[in-house]
Formats: sequence, structure tokens, C-alpha cells
Amino acid sequence: MKHLTGGVCAPKGFVASGTSCGIRKTGKKDLALIVSQKRAAAAGVYTQNLVKGAPILVTQKHLANGYARAIIANSGNANTCNANGIEIAEGMCELVEKYTGIYASDVIVASTGVIGQRLSLDPIANGMSALMMGLGSNSSDAAEAILTTDTVRKEAAVSLELGGKTVKIGAIAKGSGMIHPNMATLLVFTTTDAAVAPALLQKALELAIQDSFNMISIDRDTSTNDTAVILANGMAENAEIGSENADFAAFLAALKALYIHLSRLISKDGEGATKLLECRVTGARTDADARVAAKSVICSPLLKCAMFGSDANWGRVLCALGYAGADIDVAGVDVTFKSEAGEIKVCENGGGIAFSEEAAKTVLSAPEIEIAVSLGGGPGEALAFGCDLTYDYVKINSDYRS
Amino acid sequence: MKHLTGGVCAPKGFVASGTSCGIRKTGKKDLALIVSQKRAAAAGVYTQNLVKGAPILVTQKHLANGYARAIIANSGNANTCNANGIEIAEGMCELVEKYTGIYASDVIVASTGVIGQRLSLDPIANGMSALMMGLGSNSSDAAEAILTTDTVRKEAAVSLELGGKTVKIGAIAKGSGMIHPNMATLLVFTTTDAAVAPALLQKALELAIQDSFNMISIDRDTSTNDTAVILANGMAENAEIGSENADFAAFLAALKALYIHLSRLISKDGEGATKLLECRVTGARTDADARVAAKSVICSPLLKCAMFGSDANWGRVLCALGYAGADIDVAGVDVTFKSEAGEIKVCENGGGIAFSEEAAKTVLSAPEIEIAVSLGGGPGEALAFGCDLTYDYVKINSDYRS
Repeated sequence: MKHLTGGVCAPKGFVASGTSCGIRKTGKKDLALIVSQKRAAAAGVYTQNLVKGAPILVTQKHLANGYARAIIANSGNANTCNANGIEIAEGMCELVEKYTGIYASDVIVASTGVIGQRLSLDPIANGMSALMMGLGSNSSDAAEAILTTDTVRKEAAVSLELGGKTVKIGAIAKGSGMIHPNMATLLVFTTTDAAVAPALLQKALELAIQDSFNMISIDRDTSTNDTAVILANGMAENAEIGSENADFAAFLAALKALYIHLSRLISKDGEGATKLLECRVTGARTDADARVAAKSVICSPLLKCAMFGSDANWGRVLCALGYAGADIDVAGVDVTFKSEAGEIKVCENGGGIAFSEEAAKTVLSAPEIEIAVSLGGGPGEALAFGCDLTYDYVKINSDYRS
Repeated sequence: MKHLTGGVCAPKGFVASGTSCGIRKTGKKDLALIVSQKRAAAAGVYTQNLVKGAPILVTQKHLANGYARAIIANSGNANTCNANGIEIAEGMCELVEKYTGIYASDVIVASTGVIGQRLSLDPIANGMSALMMGLGSNSSDAAEAILTTDTVRKEAAVSLELGGKTVKIGAIAKGSGMIHPNMATLLVFTTTDAAVAPALLQKALELAIQDSFNMISIDRDTSTNDTAVILANGMAENAEIGSENADFAAFLAALKALYIHLSRLISKDGEGATKLLECRVTGARTDADARVAAKSVICSPLLKCAMFGSDANWGRVLCALGYAGADIDVAGVDVTFKSEAGEIKVCENGGGIAFSEEAAKTVLSAPEIEIAVSLGGGPGEALAFGCDLTYDYVKINSDYRS
């Protein structure tokens, strides 16, 4: 597996575009389009929040047959909790049909931004010409157009060999606040030129997400608009993956690696974040216990504040493990803080051990911190992604709408 | 039912004291003692965190027989995750026996503060004389001695008539961060001169807590040391409450009112808080659904930030209801913000309605905000307590240990 540039345009047969159509007053790009030359197998997972953005309902309908060809997405307005939300989401798909000839029913639609404000179709209609003119290897423009409070674009691509053919997978993502994915995630648009049957594509997507985006939490608020979709247009000409064979395993491994890379990018760019936090749990009785434990640690506001202050307050790690709801023997817990600046063990068998506060401060002052938790001798392990809780998170969210 | 002053010393036969013994370097009071003249029926509930402070294990042992006479508590160190924690907690009870003659096995012990630092018995032993000299109607001193990052004392007392006798109930509490009680709460010490059999006292305690302390969340971090205990010494000479009769109902109603009063005080004094938030959910299918929904709203970091900024971002209320896990028809949700400055409806049937942003800002600029959520026509309702999320929460917790 190799890492590539080019994002969603790295795989064969995909073009993308991003423009500013005026939904956002700042002039930031706010409308994105991704198009496949050929109709593609398609799969999606969505938020488990009972309040769902209207675009999700429309996308679910369009993906029911397992195929699609284009993705349109806007930022600046989530098109959620609006009386005319479905009408607008369908209108966006119809605009794509009008300009590209792709059936509206083969278009995936997504929106992100403020909840509960009406979205007008006018700026989107006005932006379509510019969007069409921009279509090309412009993954970065599309990646920029879906950002909200994000400060950096999230793009990645990889290639792998399947039966003598080079297959590529590319993705763009967004997400900085209201990030606590549950069975789905943020916005993630993935393209691949691999040939994969829709059912297997859905399975690969769900498995890859379980260990990547679903292990992120920025603020424990599960969004109403989380959507991850993947389009596989088969233009790499590999033998279609139609069962859980070796090709499926290789494709899944590449997809998971791509998503973990994006998960780290997203967590590091969490609203107000100054540090990426990763909690690696080993020795749990099961992977499920490890996931619950790792996510509980990454979610603790108190620990997140301590990490912001480079304070080795490991008692908060123990506290979060204790209320996680996993099957844990607290008397067997070890905790070590790790970073590029070194590592320091702070807790052994559930109790404190002597350590240098100065050395701990050095370790915790790095921009990427790993909280390594050993729960004992079990086979279960997991990795969760988060960030510190800072003044800027409060600042960003105390006046988000204006 | 009448509200009284005097806290835990309002009921007959209880004295209290608080002193500074030097566990905390600041000179703030850090050691409290409450004593009943007579042996009292006693009941307790404790954190459900798997990591439990050593004092909880000792208190559970001492309360196994349903009776106790004294409470000793320190702040500044949680005596949790320490190799010698049990020894220290038992040592604190033995100090009470040495100075008062009350059997150590009739002493309740509690600690609150940093987790994972060794607690020495020395300052406590040195402080005992001053603590004994201070015993009297000094509920406020005891209330002060158990505070950590709290900025105000939490004390309350009520009286009620039971069978022609006046019965009093008093309580002190602490809690400002790591507050997300689960089946127990913070530290709450309650005294009453009512005669109540231990089993009924336990039942009243659990029922009163369900609708009060267990409905608070400051930061979703369930503490390792949450402890609520009640002593009933019978000196009011009412007929002992031995069944769920009318007297039990009256006693429970008074206890619940007292605890809701304290829950509001605690929430308003949450770490860094500038505003008390209350979420009142009505029209749910069941009370259990209402409780889950109300607590989810009060916990949302994004909503808490919006309330800090007086921003009527009601989409975040809908979002939190959607992921709560309760059985909710999101298309039937109404949301109204209320305060002393007025009230303003912002969402009807799950969708936005026109409202004056200026008027909303006025309503939300008050120090106590009610978020009123109607879920439909069901009989279930609940009230949850929380506070806004501010810069100061981050400040307090990014360097708590130093």
C-alpha cells in the first residue's frame, strides 16, 4: 500500500470541484461536486441520531439500489430541522441532473453547518455553472468547500495491488465540532476505481469506520448530519470483489489505513484543539471492552483540560476508565503517557507511582500525545482519537451562529 | 414544609465543626466533623464508578448494620488509587473514636480532591483537637471544609410535621467539577431528627436522589468519590417510620425538595459556570425517557457553550435529544427558552419558527435559564440541572493539581 496525493481525484475516472456560491457570507468555498465518469457501486453509513438532516433521507433513498455517480455537498447550513428540507435536498440533486445529465436518483447529497435555518436553493443554482467549470483534478477545492469550523483540509489517497491491477482509493472529510460519530461519521466522501460489488462495498465501509471515524470524539455531541459514502467505479479493471476473499481483505486494510489517517487529521483539527490525543488500550478482555474504555478516556472533559495544560493528572484517566461501562479490573491498570518527547509511566496496578513532574510536563507539551492504557493480559485492544479541550472550543461555540 | 437555616445542625441533637488541618496548602478549611448525640439510623448511596475512593469501601462496611453516629470528611485529597487508602480511611475513623468515644465502626468517612496522591494521617491527627473544640451549631464550617473548587457553601434545612411532631432535615453538600452523579452524588451529608427505620431511610434516600442529584451534570465525568449519607437520630420523637405510609411520603417529599434546592446550588456553582441551566422535559412517553432526554440536553458541550454566549442555538437542543437514546418522536418536539427576563419559543414540531434574536438574547442573558422541551402528549416528565461551559472551566481544570 502506498500513500498518494490527489484525494478523491487520485482514483481513475473521478473529477471534483469546489466553489463559493454565497451560502456562507465570508466568501469561503461552500459548494462541492464529485463526479464519476462511470456509474459506480456505492455504499453509505449515516448518523444514528434520531434527528437526521434532510440530505441523509434523500441520499438513503438514492443509494437503495447500490449505485450512484455524483456527490453534491454544501457547508454553512445543515439543512436539518427545516420544514422544506427534503425539497431542498432533492432540488440539489435535480440541479446536478440539469447540469451533468446524471439522473438525480444517482446523486448523493450532503449538507453541514447550522441546524434549523432554512436553506435556499438560489445560491446553489447560481453556483452550478462555476462548479461545472471547475470540474477536474480539484479534490482540494471540494475538500475546502465542505469545511465549517475546520482549519485545515482533510484529504488522503492510497494505492494497492489487486490481482496485478493497481487500485486507488481517495477520500476527503470534514469535521471539527459536534463530533462523536456513532455508526457513521462527519462528512467523508471516498472514491475508488476498484471494482467492488455494492454489498461488499457496504461491508468494507462499515468495518473500516468501526476502527477509525467511530473511534473519534471531539465533544461527545453526535451530529445530525454525519455521512460517509464511497463510490467504486471499477475503472482499475480488477476482478470485481464479490466475496470476502483475499482481495476484499487487502481493500479493507487499505481503506482502514486511509480512514485512520483522516481520523488523526480530524482529531488534531478539533474545534479549538492544540493537541491530538490518542488513547491506546491493550490487554482488555475483548476488543469491544477496549473500544469502550479508550473512547471513555478520550471523551473526559477533565482529562482533555489536563492535557491542554500538560498536567499529568492520571487520576482522571482512571476515573474515566471506571465509569466507561467496560468490564475492567481497575486494580490491574497501568498508564503511560507517550509523545515524540519521550514516555513516562504514571500509574501501575491501579495506583500512583513516583515520577518526575518535570519530565511528564515535557512529554505532555508535544503536539501529539498517546495515552497508553494496559488493562491486563487479555487480547482486546483499541485506539481512540480525540483532542484537548481549550478556551478556543468555548469561544468558537459560544457564538457559532453569528 | 418550611425552609430553615442551620444546615446539618438544624435537626435536634446534631453538632458540627470544620477546621483547617493543613491538607490544603492555602489555609482553606479542609476537615469536617458531624456528630449525633444519639446513635442514628443511617443510609448511604455511592458512586457507580468501578474506581472507588477508599473511604467509600470503609463507609459501606460501617453502614452495613444500618446505624452510625458521626461523619468525618476531608477535602484536598480524594484518598483514591492509593496503596494505603483503606488504612488511612480507617485511621480517620479511629481518630474520631479516640477523641469522641464513638466506635470507629459507627463513623462514616469521606474524602474529596486530587486522585492518586497519598494522603497522610498526620495533618488529620493534628487537626482533631481544633475540630473537637469547634463542635457546636457550626454547620457552615463543616460545609466550608468539604469544598474543593466550589465557590460557595451548599447548606439547606427544612422542617415538616409528622404525627403532631416537628421533624427537621438538614444537609450540606459539595461538588463543582467531575460532576455527573450515577446512582449517588458528590458529597452530601444529611441529618434528621426524624425516627426512620434504616431500610426506609435507604429507600427515601435513593428515591430523593433519583430526581435531584442524579439529574445534575456539570461535565459528564462521574466521580470516583460520590457519597450521599443520611443520619436519622429520632430525637424529634415522631412515631418511627417503618413502612411506606403517609409519614414516609411526607418525609420523602421534604427530603426531595431539600435535595432539589441543593442540586440547583451545586449546578449554579459548577466549575467556571456563569449560569444555571435547567432542562424541563414534559410530554415524554415515560418518566425514564424524560430523564434521559433532559440529561442529554444538559450535558451537550455545544449547547452549554451556546448558553454561555446567550446564543439561541436551539438546533443543538434537537441534536442532543436525537442522540439521547430515549424513545422520542422528533417531529413533535417544541422548545422554549425561559428566564426571569421572559420566555421565547424557538422550535415547534421539530422545526424552526420565526423569533426575535434580540428578545432571545435578553432571555438567555439571565443567570438562570430554563430550557423547556415538550415531546408530545405523554405523561412522562423530568427536570435536569446543569451549567454553561466557559473559559474558566478550562482554566480551572487545565492545571488543577498545582
